[in-house]
Amino acid sequence: MIEQKGILFILSGPSGVGKGTVRKALFEKDTSLQYSISMTTRDKRPGEVEGVDYFYRTKEEFEEMINKGQLLEYAKYVNNYYGTPRQYVEETLEQGKDVFLEIEVQGALQVRENFPEGVFIFLCPPSLDELKNRIINRGTETEQSVMNRLRAAKDEIELMDAYDYVVVNDYIDNAVDKIQAIVASEHCKRERVASEYKKLLEVTQL
Amino acid sequence: MIEQKGILFILSGPSGVGKGTVRKALFEKDTSLQYSISMTTRDKRPGEVEGVDYFYRTKEEFEEMINKGQLLEYAKYVNNYYGTPRQYVEETLEQGKDVFLEIEVQGALQVRENFPEGVFIFLCPPSLDELKNRIINRGTETEQSVMNRLRAAKDEIELMDAYDYVVVNDYIDNAVDKIQAIVASEHCKRERVASEYKKLLEVTQL
Repeated sequence: MIEQKGILFILSGPSGVGKGTVRKALFEKDTSLQYSISMTTRDKRPGEVEGVDYFYRTKEEFEEMINKGQLLEYAKYVNNYYGTPRQYVEETLEQGKDVFLEIEVQGALQVRENFPEGVFIFLCPPSLDELKNRIINRGTETEQSVMNRLRAAKDEIELMDAYDYVVVNDYIDNAVDKIQAIVASEHCKRERVASEYKKLLEVTQL
Repeated sequence: MIEQKGILFILSGPSGVGKGTVRKALFEKDTSLQYSISMTTRDKRPGEVEGVDYFYRTKEEFEEMINKGQLLEYAKYVNNYYGTPRQYVEETLEQGKDVFLEIEVQGALQVRENFPEGVFIFLCPPSLDELKNRIINRGTETEQSVMNRLRAAKDEIELMDAYDYVVVNDYIDNAVDKIQAIVASEHCKRERVASEYKKLLEVTQL
């Protein structure tokens, strides 16, 4: 039996493409992945649990972690920090578990800088027309803001060159199947398997 | 809809590992792959069909193809040539169909030289002990020849560094699942998808 470290998979893509929906459908089918737990400075809400929903830290603690490079990525929303702690990811990978991170494009680019050995998957809409329909169907945006979001999406799609894989989100089940195929095939990559396999051979006497 | 060229997949591995069995099981499940048709100088047998079982050529024709670099690999067995014609592979890939080639390690290394854009999958036994059992269970070899084959297998396994993926053939179904995952994920590789996808975006007016 070949022992292997886990792999960090990062799912990203333009806003509106359906990252969250695909991630939920994936986790319903696949229980071998560990969802990456974020760190935040916002207050813990009733029912939330440290280390399950988030790791909760003070603003000072969070900023110290930023300065020490202990976050794979972070961002500030509405005066609170949110980020991905490196230590949690690395410990989970060491246990042989894959970690799965679903994140906005800007965050994914930070992770790419800080953890280039991750596997980066870009989820994209079948077409911009389809993305337009999805944003309009949410019903929360003016015509002008729909156009702004589409232009932003087009810019974000240009960033796909920083990714290892592109999955077109035509149907959720298709996208989930493809992501599962990527996870399985990455574990067969020769770079990951060969050295452990050769160790296994060395102990065999002929 | 993104149009994509087919991909050439090469399955290889040490003699005795079960390449043929895995290939047959794969083709029973997956009808989207086209098996690569070999060229030979041996006589056509009753019931065999040109372009289905083999492409049949004279020795002179075959040697001319060797000299013109029109074979991805070839070998001579019992005074006859066998090889993989480049043209058939390339035409099938152009039609958007994946081509699958199951071949000995030496032939795979030739293909790697002549068609580096192929995806090379190394099938290996769970352990050398297991390979020994498989060879012994065939019941056709003396103890000495079993040891010779095992030593040859160990040398062949050292060649796995020339491959993109390593699939351990513990159970046939597992191995087939992994190969199917590799096929699906290779079609999601950003290098293959990004340029076609961007063309699709350019025609969208915002």
